[in-house]
Amino acid sequence: MNTVTIINIGDELLLGQVVNTNASAMAKMLTEAGFEVTHTVVVGDSREDIWQTVDSAMHSSAITLLTGGLGPTKDDITKKLLCDYFGSELVESEVALENVRRIFAMRGFELTPVNRAQALVPRCCEVLNNDLGTAPCMWFGLTPSPSPVGEGDGMRGANTPLSRGRGVGGKAVLVSLPGVPFEMEWLMQNRVIPKLQETFQTETIINKNILVQGIGESFLSDLIEPWELALPECIRLAYLPVAGMVKLRLTCRIAPDTPDIPDIPELLQGLYALAGQYIVGEDCETLAELVHKTLTERGLTLATAESCTGGTIASQLTAQAGASAYFRGGIIAYSNEVKECALGVQHSTLEAHGAVSEETVREMVEGVRKRLRADLAIATTGIAGPDGGTKEKPVGTVWIAVADATHTEAQLLNFPGRRRQQNIDRTVNQAFSMLIKLLCRKD
Amino acid sequence: MNTVTIINIGDELLLGQVVNTNASAMAKMLTEAGFEVTHTVVVGDSREDIWQTVDSAMHSSAITLLTGGLGPTKDDITKKLLCDYFGSELVESEVALENVRRIFAMRGFELTPVNRAQALVPRCCEVLNNDLGTAPCMWFGLTPSPSPVGEGDGMRGANTPLSRGRGVGGKAVLVSLPGVPFEMEWLMQNRVIPKLQETFQTETIINKNILVQGIGESFLSDLIEPWELALPECIRLAYLPVAGMVKLRLTCRIAPDTPDIPDIPELLQGLYALAGQYIVGEDCETLAELVHKTLTERGLTLATAESCTGGTIASQLTAQAGASAYFRGGIIAYSNEVKECALGVQHSTLEAHGAVSEETVREMVEGVRKRLRADLAIATTGIAGPDGGTKEKPVGTVWIAVADATHTEAQLLNFPGRRRQQNIDRTVNQAFSMLIKLLCRKD
Repeated sequence: MNTVTIINIGDELLLGQVVNTNASAMAKMLTEAGFEVTHTVVVGDSREDIWQTVDSAMHSSAITLLTGGLGPTKDDITKKLLCDYFGSELVESEVALENVRRIFAMRGFELTPVNRAQALVPRCCEVLNNDLGTAPCMWFGLTPSPSPVGEGDGMRGANTPLSRGRGVGGKAVLVSLPGVPFEMEWLMQNRVIPKLQETFQTETIINKNILVQGIGESFLSDLIEPWELALPECIRLAYLPVAGMVKLRLTCRIAPDTPDIPDIPELLQGLYALAGQYIVGEDCETLAELVHKTLTERGLTLATAESCTGGTIASQLTAQAGASAYFRGGIIAYSNEVKECALGVQHSTLEAHGAVSEETVREMVEGVRKRLRADLAIATTGIAGPDGGTKEKPVGTVWIAVADATHTEAQLLNFPGRRRQQNIDRTVNQAFSMLIKLLCRKD
Repeated sequence: MNTVTIINIGDELLLGQVVNTNASAMAKMLTEAGFEVTHTVVVGDSREDIWQTVDSAMHSSAITLLTGGLGPTKDDITKKLLCDYFGSELVESEVALENVRRIFAMRGFELTPVNRAQALVPRCCEVLNNDLGTAPCMWFGLTPSPSPVGEGDGMRGANTPLSRGRGVGGKAVLVSLPGVPFEMEWLMQNRVIPKLQETFQTETIINKNILVQGIGESFLSDLIEPWELALPECIRLAYLPVAGMVKLRLTCRIAPDTPDIPDIPELLQGLYALAGQYIVGEDCETLAELVHKTLTERGLTLATAESCTGGTIASQLTAQAGASAYFRGGIIAYSNEVKECALGVQHSTLEAHGAVSEETVREMVEGVRKRLRADLAIATTGIAGPDGGTKEKPVGTVWIAVADATHTEAQLLNFPGRRRQQNIDRTVNQAFSMLIKLLCRKD
């Protein structure tokens, strides 16, 4: 197994002011490339903690990936530490300096001494060029030792780094990357993963996502238990509940030269037989992605009228490249006046039934579809919370509608919680799911 | 020091399909309560890996917090492991069973055996009631041992759990929480942190955020270096760059009974003297929060007209409770037709200058402000990428405008990258920053 430990460095992560999206982004890319991430660890900008964590990872994983601690500001310390850890010395790398110069010239800035220092790297590493930034990416490749030191020997900081690591045949690698997410992602995709794949023999990984909506995790688990128990050993099933939806993920690992590769479509027939009515789609990470794919393929256009979701439906769709092919636009009708003037909801409807009602959501969805000249429309109106509820319409009361030229479907939801973001996210997923069902009905 | 290790369990985190927001949410709450998080670790649903990680954390931290692995589905294993680790046995907890019954009754579901099993807990733990879910929160409090076992003794799985941990005076605590984010958050706030504060003497932590815009991290660092070097020792400064903005965070730790508490407002005068022109605000995590606070305090209303940001400005504002007090609504004018019909942009303007132009963004911002009858408005139009650019208007070309009743300010941005989400996020932050500046000018 080509095991990986990911170490993300930064006080800001331990103080909780930044969410560590790097770990999941790296883990996803590595998994898809056939590596097995066994641990991800966050440590602060403390030399002792980083040293211990690096040393422990080098003893337990074939591959150790580090992010952070490379920037020009004073709270960055990784590079000097790696230099000491590998018993090397800092030298100015021509490749790295040329890159720093290129980027400063492109931005029209003068090179400061603090920035020039970014080209200093330990002599024993190979610099992988970072096209998008000034911090260097450093590859430390260790060759097998004749008498490997055992795991957990506690030789912290010993001068025998080449004997560390327990990769296949003793191969071990440490790579240090910048912590800026887009630089890290570009380097992983273009430099680190290709070089890792050259260095290690990898398994083939097949991932399959199935999006399930309208049934809770534990009921789903009971329902599909017979199918789950009969899955072949090389397949693992995970339940990933997100905002009112459950994503089922099948992961199939196939070692090199394995003759029997499971037939995933055949396996899935058993799942559909038990839970088909709840399955909304396959091969997407999110319902927004499924809607994006479906509308793009079918050449249909969409408009949105959002009240309680406040633009979240539109922003999830437009976050995807190519959304302009189907997304015409939307009205965020947060006040009643905007519902009237921009969507054409009747004043009398709002007076008689209120903003959160079936009558209003139907007029919203039909109004936006016609005014923005779209084939399809989505509308939401509700009380996301934590306040603003009444006895008749408590927090969590939400109406959703979807429409095409001939049909309008409206649905009432009563979410139990008062958590605003959760209620918004569940409404968005339910709306996407209703749109998919409306489209399937037309088939 | 009351050191904390956070362990989040779940294959889904190592496969990178779920971002680990629990670690940052927990770290933030703990930091604010005066605890010091030194490590956060993610491990998969593997008994051996969890055991080793728990054991290592118990040896190095006073407090170990665990999330995940408590749900009813088959991929959950934490509870049995903790039972073995502490040499205890599983018993049905009356408190936990009563809670499971209450929640199933509330939801109108029948109790299944799989759900009843959620009330089983190790005999040696104390159940902290989880008001929001069926998985129990388990507190394992360890009393000091007469002869503490040294760090790193390697006695994995030894039957002396009470001698583990190196908290103050030998006190050590392990708490196991469910991984569902809103249950975890509620439990941390209402059960775990109050009980930790009873158990451990905590430092006072003062955090101060300063939002800086319009200058890169390394230039800012050079600019404020003299001030940074003169900061008292108990204060740490971190640079947190996010989407075209830098958040400076000062963290001040004050031990109990310290007489000299630094005067933060006085300290900040030095920062303002050097970098005042770039400082947009204080005491907020994001610019969206700063806009929310400012508009709420001033009683001013806002409307948005978004093209390239596709609803992200509106969704960031409406994610905050109370946004309806100032946010009237918005138009997402993704297609030119919607720019004309919903915002009143002249057909001739679009013909002559194109959708991405100063003329168009000015008509958008003024159109939406008038049509939605708001005091203030924001508009964006641009090419977010990765495709869709031309030679004259490459990817990353963005126009932003803000307006009140008497002024309209428009600004052209040329982002260097082709990354869609980054260009959207930078546009959003720049737009918020322009709005704040417009409001300050009126003072």
